[in-house]
Amino acid sequence: MNQSTARKTSATTDDHQEDRPHVLTLPLEDQQADREPHSYERWLLAKLMRMAGSPPVRFQLWNDEFVGPEVGQARFTLRLTDPKALYALVTNPNLAFGDLYSAGRLQVEGDLSDLMEALYRSLHNARQQWPRWLEALWRNHNPRPTGVSEARENIHHHYDLGNEFYQLWLDQAEMQYTCAYYETPELTLEQAQLAKLEHVCRKLRLKPGMTVVEAGCGWGGLARYMARNYGVKVHSYNISKEQLTYAREEARRQQLDHLIDYVEDDYRNISGQYDAFVSIGMLEHVGKDNYQALSELIRRSLKPNGIALLHSIGRNRPMLMNAWIEKRIFPGAYPPSISEFMGICEHGGFSVMDVENLRLHYAQTLTHWMERFRNNMDKVTGMYDEHFVRAWEMYLAGSIAAFRTGSLQLFQVVFTHGENNQLPQSRKDIYRSPAAPEAY
Amino acid sequence: MNQSTARKTSATTDDHQEDRPHVLTLPLEDQQADREPHSYERWLLAKLMRMAGSPPVRFQLWNDEFVGPEVGQARFTLRLTDPKALYALVTNPNLAFGDLYSAGRLQVEGDLSDLMEALYRSLHNARQQWPRWLEALWRNHNPRPTGVSEARENIHHHYDLGNEFYQLWLDQAEMQYTCAYYETPELTLEQAQLAKLEHVCRKLRLKPGMTVVEAGCGWGGLARYMARNYGVKVHSYNISKEQLTYAREEARRQQLDHLIDYVEDDYRNISGQYDAFVSIGMLEHVGKDNYQALSELIRRSLKPNGIALLHSIGRNRPMLMNAWIEKRIFPGAYPPSISEFMGICEHGGFSVMDVENLRLHYAQTLTHWMERFRNNMDKVTGMYDEHFVRAWEMYLAGSIAAFRTGSLQLFQVVFTHGENNQLPQSRKDIYRSPAAPEAY
Repeated sequence: MNQSTARKTSATTDDHQEDRPHVLTLPLEDQQADREPHSYERWLLAKLMRMAGSPPVRFQLWNDEFVGPEVGQARFTLRLTDPKALYALVTNPNLAFGDLYSAGRLQVEGDLSDLMEALYRSLHNARQQWPRWLEALWRNHNPRPTGVSEARENIHHHYDLGNEFYQLWLDQAEMQYTCAYYETPELTLEQAQLAKLEHVCRKLRLKPGMTVVEAGCGWGGLARYMARNYGVKVHSYNISKEQLTYAREEARRQQLDHLIDYVEDDYRNISGQYDAFVSIGMLEHVGKDNYQALSELIRRSLKPNGIALLHSIGRNRPMLMNAWIEKRIFPGAYPPSISEFMGICEHGGFSVMDVENLRLHYAQTLTHWMERFRNNMDKVTGMYDEHFVRAWEMYLAGSIAAFRTGSLQLFQVVFTHGENNQLPQSRKDIYRSPAAPEAY
Repeated sequence: MNQSTARKTSATTDDHQEDRPHVLTLPLEDQQADREPHSYERWLLAKLMRMAGSPPVRFQLWNDEFVGPEVGQARFTLRLTDPKALYALVTNPNLAFGDLYSAGRLQVEGDLSDLMEALYRSLHNARQQWPRWLEALWRNHNPRPTGVSEARENIHHHYDLGNEFYQLWLDQAEMQYTCAYYETPELTLEQAQLAKLEHVCRKLRLKPGMTVVEAGCGWGGLARYMARNYGVKVHSYNISKEQLTYAREEARRQQLDHLIDYVEDDYRNISGQYDAFVSIGMLEHVGKDNYQALSELIRRSLKPNGIALLHSIGRNRPMLMNAWIEKRIFPGAYPPSISEFMGICEHGGFSVMDVENLRLHYAQTLTHWMERFRNNMDKVTGMYDEHFVRAWEMYLAGSIAAFRTGSLQLFQVVFTHGENNQLPQSRKDIYRSPAAPEAY
């Protein structure tokens, strides 16, 4: 969606700016919500549901009539407010589902994450029987380019929404907008995010005085954690202005600024050689075209005995990002499949030492975010319009479903130069004590 | 090499059988070891060494003359016993080095593993500058086919050399002919092999009453360990007769035969569904052409919430097996690169949960094997001819070097069906206590 229009403080000025993703809306007078549904409209919806594997869903049309299974078999009711919403949905369900929900023209009765999970499962099974033409119709389009200038636009679109907004629902420990590590299931979001940071530091085998370079640092939490707890010097690159402002202020406040250099620059401009190369949640934005260059960059930035860690959303198979997410939420996003991920390591002559998949940890992280987002709904609606709020809910709910159903994975990959023989004897010391603080 | 000819007990009969790998030998009268070396022969050797990156090696020719760097710079002396050995080496060094060593026509002064390591490092660096024609000349050939009938031949060639032979230098705990797990560096071979078995069981999260299928079971040690320590039922497939004979006897002796079914059959004929699918050191013999079929086999053999583990030698990049090893030692062998390995998982819609690289553990395992092999040299030479003994030494030394220099990797990969949500919360419990017994 177009965040510029959504943000209440800076509305109207660029309402018609077409170069950024925006939400499909139609003037209400065209929506013909006062007429009776046609029988072929009911047929189209029923057909759509069959192609989607008959999920436990029924529709309520604009005249309150129900289409689909009995209420006993339908765990969710989707209300379509007008005929055009129905046409948008049946002709381009992949994109329109999120857009109509955001616009309030598709309303959901039942839990949104559970609905999305049911739809994911149902679709996943149904797709295996689809004819080729249907698969082609459904196909997600290629992500937007991610060159140096486009990357700035892509990142600005999402990460510069305002630090106050993210503070409402991210953890209060280190503003981590990536998968947490629930080493035990009852951890709070704060504990699990700190555990993630600790887990990453342990995998990197940090020692005081070492140097670290970080590609994409968010609000700078990992760099501060490393400097504070491991006494290392960190250079952290980011192209989101709002995040960097926060990161720098926070480092000063914690008197860590002598150990951390937050650099406002593209990761491609990283220079120097370091004991560790780390990137948490940036690879999803890098784009396949840049994998080889990233690999070469890590090759020249890592000291001979250095350790690199990439943490990224990934896939079990190569697959384009969901169209709605790529268009409205994360422009340019492409999560690599595990073999594509390994291809990055192979290109640079690296030796992959450790891969850990934290898929269900991301589902739990997102569930915690969703909870806080909803608890702060009044504040969010004070900042943004309802359209934005619903889009964000859909994004969080859809992501929970994607991680729960295995449509998305979360890979932490540790690797070294192929010639490096200074390797840890085992992974045992990563587990020497709990990674999470006892309380937060 | 041709084991049939090598084995003293069954010599002569099939000396000229050409369908099995055999060692290049020339009748001595052709070898012209009594003439002076020509100047262009010295030039050829010097050229070969330059192309190989000038390793710290000098040659001693059949007339005792030295070629190469001063004794101070040369850590190793390679003695060539005759002119034809020189020609074989310069025209096909990749294959001839091992063959000439086995034949006693290339003799090494200095530690063989250290020499091989120095050659690997030197070659690795030099190759990056090689012109294309030289790279093409050096190229390893494609491995032999690994269909059901060829696989029998391939496996028989190596694994049916005689249990008494392997007992001389493998661990006395469970006859493990795969990488051990040195969770601490001072472990004995027996402790480290038992630790490997325990490590694998923990990764598979075995519980009493579960069922396991094993593809390629060697002498059956993992199956017995699982039955004994975890109370699971194991079906273990193998096509090496000699190994199975030992495995079955040992299971009976340990009164574990009610829990273990050792099946003499190709892994492709595995049937049924199991809580765990495990394969230690078989993937190297499967061949790229069969990766998809293997993936589909695991898909249908694994229960919905089951866990699979593949343990295999691998590569940092796709690369053919060393020609000499493929021809003389492991016919049909091809260690997958990490992305090829992941491709196996992707094909079956699996979710990769854990990858661990134990490269240096294999170097240590091989060092222990080599030590025992040398300590039992008198017994080995009682069983096989000198040619065989030298070939085996070269194979062990070359493998040590390959793992030390990162030319080979050892990957343990854990994966599940993509839809499985019954995943362990973390890997912490794998490290709950030492995997190795306190003593052996």
